[in-house]
Amino acid sequence: MLTFYYARNTCALASHIALEHTGAEYQAVRVDFAKSQQNSQDYLRFNPKGRVPTLVTPRGSLTETPAILQFICQTFPQSGLAPLDDPFELARMNAFNSYLCSTVHVAHAHRLRGSRWADDLAAIANMKKKVPETMAACFDLIEREFIQGPWVLGEQYSVSDMYLFTLAQWLEGDGVDIRRFPKVSQHSLRMTQKPVVTRVMMAEQSAI
Amino acid sequence: MLTFYYARNTCALASHIALEHTGAEYQAVRVDFAKSQQNSQDYLRFNPKGRVPTLVTPRGSLTETPAILQFICQTFPQSGLAPLDDPFELARMNAFNSYLCSTVHVAHAHRLRGSRWADDLAAIANMKKKVPETMAACFDLIEREFIQGPWVLGEQYSVSDMYLFTLAQWLEGDGVDIRRFPKVSQHSLRMTQKPVVTRVMMAEQSAI
Repeated sequence: MLTFYYARNTCALASHIALEHTGAEYQAVRVDFAKSQQNSQDYLRFNPKGRVPTLVTPRGSLTETPAILQFICQTFPQSGLAPLDDPFELARMNAFNSYLCSTVHVAHAHRLRGSRWADDLAAIANMKKKVPETMAACFDLIEREFIQGPWVLGEQYSVSDMYLFTLAQWLEGDGVDIRRFPKVSQHSLRMTQKPVVTRVMMAEQSAI
Repeated sequence: MLTFYYARNTCALASHIALEHTGAEYQAVRVDFAKSQQNSQDYLRFNPKGRVPTLVTPRGSLTETPAILQFICQTFPQSGLAPLDDPFELARMNAFNSYLCSTVHVAHAHRLRGSRWADDLAAIANMKKKVPETMAACFDLIEREFIQGPWVLGEQYSVSDMYLFTLAQWLEGDGVDIRRFPKVSQHSLRMTQKPVVTRVMMAEQSAI
């Protein structure tokens, strides 16, 4: 049995969609950031970083979206959510996911999590101001270089699509019009037409 | 034939050590950041992000350290540099690598690359000031939670050790005394005792 810890409007959505897609039995548990549940002793036992997502398995807990995504693909290979038999294509998938976590997610985090990297309020405000520019630059690159179409890896639908969709949701709040990026826009639209995706989004928003 | 692009004193060292460890035939090419070679048209063809490392393979180029590291492990499985037959252990390895790229490397980058996330000079200076604190917090967590010993994954020596070693090299420049972290210190010492590691470090420093 798997237990999946997520918070609303976070990158955990990508792994949540992947889990739901596999048809695996799992329990989804909401972590309420407004109540700082991610810093509770109970939660830190699973994830000492105090972040989401965390996937608790019978062998222990796993963190970090790219690692959880590949683990789900390998544990449920019949789902076909990654090019597992081709190390080069798998590396392309992981390179894309790594770019999302280390560059795109980080750019976004400077809007509301600036205090991770500076103490001065003016500095934090200055970081926030630059977010529309940095996020637009990231998505310019994604639009131009990284979406083979129709999916990130071309014909192969993969967890990279779930991850891209999750971060593209943040553009509006970050002050960037998604319509600047036709491929990304169409990709997001195709994702919202998948019942698995809307089911997970509704479950996250309606959970207590 | 593989061609590996790196720059001195960057995270590319981890993949460079991994490649050398495999005994694979490859050409290492230095990218000179002082001459902005990473932004030349020739280089951007391989890596439109203008960063290092890039591994050019007969099928195309790969970027992002965690993806390149796993690709090397899968392409040269006889090297035994990853728990390839155990998806859970492999996910633990990738979670560690993902933490290094998305949190530790990012914390470090606020010292010299602050202009990625802010424009105001005072804000950039304020980011720089916080780096000793954020890097120490990252390595506190690594010391306490993530080094099983003697290697990151316990008895299994892996590419995570090469990556940890690479980022631990940055502590001194970031104003953090590595001796605060006994496990990390001993780990770095064990790494420098490996001929492959010193060979790659010397090659990077002596390359024209």
